Amino acid sequence: MLLNKIGEFGLIERFKKIIKTDSSVIEGVGDDCAVLEFDRRNYQLFTCDMIVEGVDFLPQTDPYLIGRKAVAISLSDIAACGGLPKHCLVSLGIPKKTSVEFVDRFFRGMRDLAKKYKINIVGGDLSKSRQLTVDVSMLGLVEKKNLVLRSGAQKGQLIFVTGKLGGSLNSGRHLKFIPRIIESRYLVNNFKPGSMIDISDGLAADLGHILERSKKGAILYETLIPKNNNVTLGEALFSGEDFELLFTLPLKQAINFNKVRHPQNMRFFLIGEISDYPGITLVDRKFCCRKVKDSGFRHF
Amino acid sequence: MLLNKIGEFGLIERFKKIIKTDSSVIEGVGDDCAVLEFDRRNYQLFTCDMIVEGVDFLPQTDPYLIGRKAVAISLSDIAACGGLPKHCLVSLGIPKKTSVEFVDRFFRGMRDLAKKYKINIVGGDLSKSRQLTVDVSMLGLVEKKNLVLRSGAQKGQLIFVTGKLGGSLNSGRHLKFIPRIIESRYLVNNFKPGSMIDISDGLAADLGHILERSKKGAILYETLIPKNNNVTLGEALFSGEDFELLFTLPLKQAINFNKVRHPQNMRFFLIGEISDYPGITLVDRKFCCRKVKDSGFRHF
Repeated sequence: MLLNKIGEFGLIERFKKIIKTDSSVIEGVGDDCAVLEFDRRNYQLFTCDMIVEGVDFLPQTDPYLIGRKAVAISLSDIAACGGLPKHCLVSLGIPKKTSVEFVDRFFRGMRDLAKKYKINIVGGDLSKSRQLTVDVSMLGLVEKKNLVLRSGAQKGQLIFVTGKLGGSLNSGRHLKFIPRIIESRYLVNNFKPGSMIDISDGLAADLGHILERSKKGAILYETLIPKNNNVTLGEALFSGEDFELLFTLPLKQAINFNKVRHPQNMRFFLIGEISDYPGITLVDRKFCCRKVKDSGFRHF
Repeated sequence: MLLNKIGEFGLIERFKKIIKTDSSVIEGVGDDCAVLEFDRRNYQLFTCDMIVEGVDFLPQTDPYLIGRKAVAISLSDIAACGGLPKHCLVSLGIPKKTSVEFVDRFFRGMRDLAKKYKINIVGGDLSKSRQLTVDVSMLGLVEKKNLVLRSGAQKGQLIFVTGKLGGSLNSGRHLKFIPRIIESRYLVNNFKPGSMIDISDGLAADLGHILERSKKGAILYETLIPKNNNVTLGEALFSGEDFELLFTLPLKQAINFNKVRHPQNMRFFLIGEISDYPGITLVDRKFCCRKVKDSGFRHF
């Protein structure tokens, strides 16, 4: 039986079966980061992301942006848990015929983003590979009181995103996005998000992950969903790699949150609310409701 | 200019230039693991290893052994620093036409070794890839007093290895080796190794890494080097993937160490000593000396 018979999520389910964790693991597979005991005040966050030539970037992509993206997506995972990134390792599978200039630019893309977020690149590994393959594993810290998981959405909480959605792959934004570390830290330090995730598979799919882990449903308002220029509603709902944060806030906080002026030009868009009714219900301009089918990005 | 002009170590040198670390990093690139501040008593060890189809294993290799090897090589890195492994993440680049049965066996290989060494597999990432590519990143702990680096070899220290060398790739041992966690913990808890490394590139190359970091030289005695069956001296010196530990002990300890009976059938082979004279000098059966050229495994 081939993998595409069970699909990406079937594969993940099989992977979950090999997971066995002791009490030092607060959260294993099933969130943006693994959450590990660290000290009295903090948890340690641990995440990895692999990007592959021809899948996550093209052979002609500027190597500076490949290096940048490899680090950015792990930063985004740390942000999704409310944490601050600290250290990373880089595993590199690299084709024999790569030029030194290419590698130098690639390293510079990594270094510049690492510098911006004050993280240490502490080592790595190197192998030969036919496709350029980059895997960044990252460590971060989050105060125990500030940890946000996918599983904390409650009925009545309002749903927000940190930016406009859709068209990331076509526009090249997936190579240049800003990981929402600052927004995430502002949120956890000043509010109490119930749940959070970064949008990598698409709004509908990633909201779906929150709903699944929280055992809830959601209502989205079509007119509220912020779309990038020249992007259809379908793209805003289903196209992946936006790397905006999607989070929920308790109603009381959310009302105030939506009124105040946020610092540093941060923008937050209210898009809907959590309900008890399963699945995602989309309310259109005429207040007609329809169910949103999950059709986000799949590798298999 | 192509990569093979600067070679694997030239590439690593370029990588080192992007490394910038703050005071929470005790040791960055240049050892088997990155060493990070953790708590009063312990350092945290952080390492990653990527294996690629056609380079580190063959398309026809039993997937159980591929999964096993992916975890084992990171365990070996933790052992090389004197530590205990704790958690790991698995990034998987996987061809579309892989069978579910293959993946299940692969996962089982990982799980069984993880279980044996009581480590938590806490998550991972998944991508499509033409060659099966596995990157395991691992966390471990080591008591501050027990940390062993490559840089601590001193003149007069004796050099040991934990097992017979050579022929690992041809015999398939590189897929089935036992990571030397137990030996490493026995060593650091009962003795005070000056330096340690695991032999992945070959005895001469990895001893070379210790000598370079410690700014020392070494004398090896041909008759003392333990060889696997049907293995030439050249293979014992230069063929990679033995994954035995290579370590040095202060003379006083070493003499006693070489006499006592070690528990659990552990075996340690004295092979030479650290000197001030640069490079590796090999003493043959007739007590003639010659320099050993570094010609270990290179990806480029």
